[in-house]
Amino acid sequence: MDGALSFAENLAREAGKIMRENFSAASVGMKREWKDDNTPLTETDTAINKLVIEAVSAAYPTYSVIGEEASNLKESEYAWVCDPVDGTIPFSHGFPIFTFSLALTKNGESIVGVMYDPIMDRLVSAEKGKGAYLNGQKISVSSEKTISKQSFVELNTNDRMTSLRAYLHEKGSYVPTLYSCVYASMLVATGEFAAAIYPHDKPWDAAAVKIVIEEAGGKVTDLDGNEQRYDGKVNGFVASNGYVHNELVRALKQ
Amino acid sequence: MDGALSFAENLAREAGKIMRENFSAASVGMKREWKDDNTPLTETDTAINKLVIEAVSAAYPTYSVIGEEASNLKESEYAWVCDPVDGTIPFSHGFPIFTFSLALTKNGESIVGVMYDPIMDRLVSAEKGKGAYLNGQKISVSSEKTISKQSFVELNTNDRMTSLRAYLHEKGSYVPTLYSCVYASMLVATGEFAAAIYPHDKPWDAAAVKIVIEEAGGKVTDLDGNEQRYDGKVNGFVASNGYVHNELVRALKQ
Repeated sequence: MDGALSFAENLAREAGKIMRENFSAASVGMKREWKDDNTPLTETDTAINKLVIEAVSAAYPTYSVIGEEASNLKESEYAWVCDPVDGTIPFSHGFPIFTFSLALTKNGESIVGVMYDPIMDRLVSAEKGKGAYLNGQKISVSSEKTISKQSFVELNTNDRMTSLRAYLHEKGSYVPTLYSCVYASMLVATGEFAAAIYPHDKPWDAAAVKIVIEEAGGKVTDLDGNEQRYDGKVNGFVASNGYVHNELVRALKQ
Repeated sequence: MDGALSFAENLAREAGKIMRENFSAASVGMKREWKDDNTPLTETDTAINKLVIEAVSAAYPTYSVIGEEASNLKESEYAWVCDPVDGTIPFSHGFPIFTFSLALTKNGESIVGVMYDPIMDRLVSAEKGKGAYLNGQKISVSSEKTISKQSFVELNTNDRMTSLRAYLHEKGSYVPTLYSCVYASMLVATGEFAAAIYPHDKPWDAAAVKIVIEEAGGKVTDLDGNEQRYDGKVNGFVASNGYVHNELVRALKQ
């Protein structure tokens, strides 16, 4: 896989440039459409997805692309799995919580992943067996052993989360809802958050999270605590520092 | 009150410079202490609070300062009410959701207010009867008449919010928890969010919100829908576009 990581990193920086140009926080309102699942879509999502398909077609013509806004499927064990703007909700509503997310999967296993936060210029990347890095600096998850008052656990809103939310409130923890699961997972990888929970089925929200957090020393499973493939529908994810993983999976099941 | 608004705006920009210098997202972790109420404190909070007390002492020597980290109380009908870093939780945990917040109150009524987001360089300001502005551009709250699937309502976590949270989830709305009530209120003032709900009692989290949102055409009351003073303990706030205000106050009471 020589070159795949730097291919992904270069694409991330190019995508980030587009996001920075188009996120105009100081002018009010952004043109957005609402998709059938009640999530917004902007021209930026579409433009970056196109960029990724073109770049993969040129550099990896036999590989699939599985993207949030468009895919390009091939007969291949390899797929580049991409969310052009993870956090379109914040992006289109004036708060700078969004990332580009791209992973390479081989037979459904994430082997290379990048996340890029263009506002703070944070590039987080990982390659199987080689650790996770933030702008070249090695990173690792937090060392907290149990969920406590000073824990941070990102939750999206979803019926299934009710028991977990109640559990976290009882513990007195912080329960942010930032609406970018990859962004929150980046903060798990850098040790700021204990965990991020994602209740939906989109592989592009999960594929980079899997490799980045595990290379940072953490653990990522589906919502039931099981391993899963990342090149098709997923069963959500629990992305944690590892220590608090079983505690959260148990609380989800209650 | 000639000059009070530009005094506040200048202080906001000075405070923002300190925040930008000290928010180092790309280096991992920030020195922070935990206060008795389980909220973090950084050197930045302390430094900006000191700056405000010194500036007020020089320009308005007879006025009180009521600050999150330190106050300077005088026998005066006027008080500058300041949160040096609203959003110390995000500030100290790697996500760029924080503002400087300062208001001038006269007999408990907010008459001048500023919020400054130093990362996106957004200065929101208002003066009684003169409208609200984002970097000099007039702003106004959203025009949505009821809470819907595409509404955004910021909630902090708190027991009392359970019924409101259930109501919002039932409506299918977005319910972010950003941990900066002033930041979320800035997004109400610019029309991105329908409302922000704040369940605590700190006047520095509320005083600028009151004047800015009302000058942007919205409404701010305590959690029970009543008017209140902003130079002492508050009974939380509901800050909304006005249209959805009674709906939210009702849902809070259930």
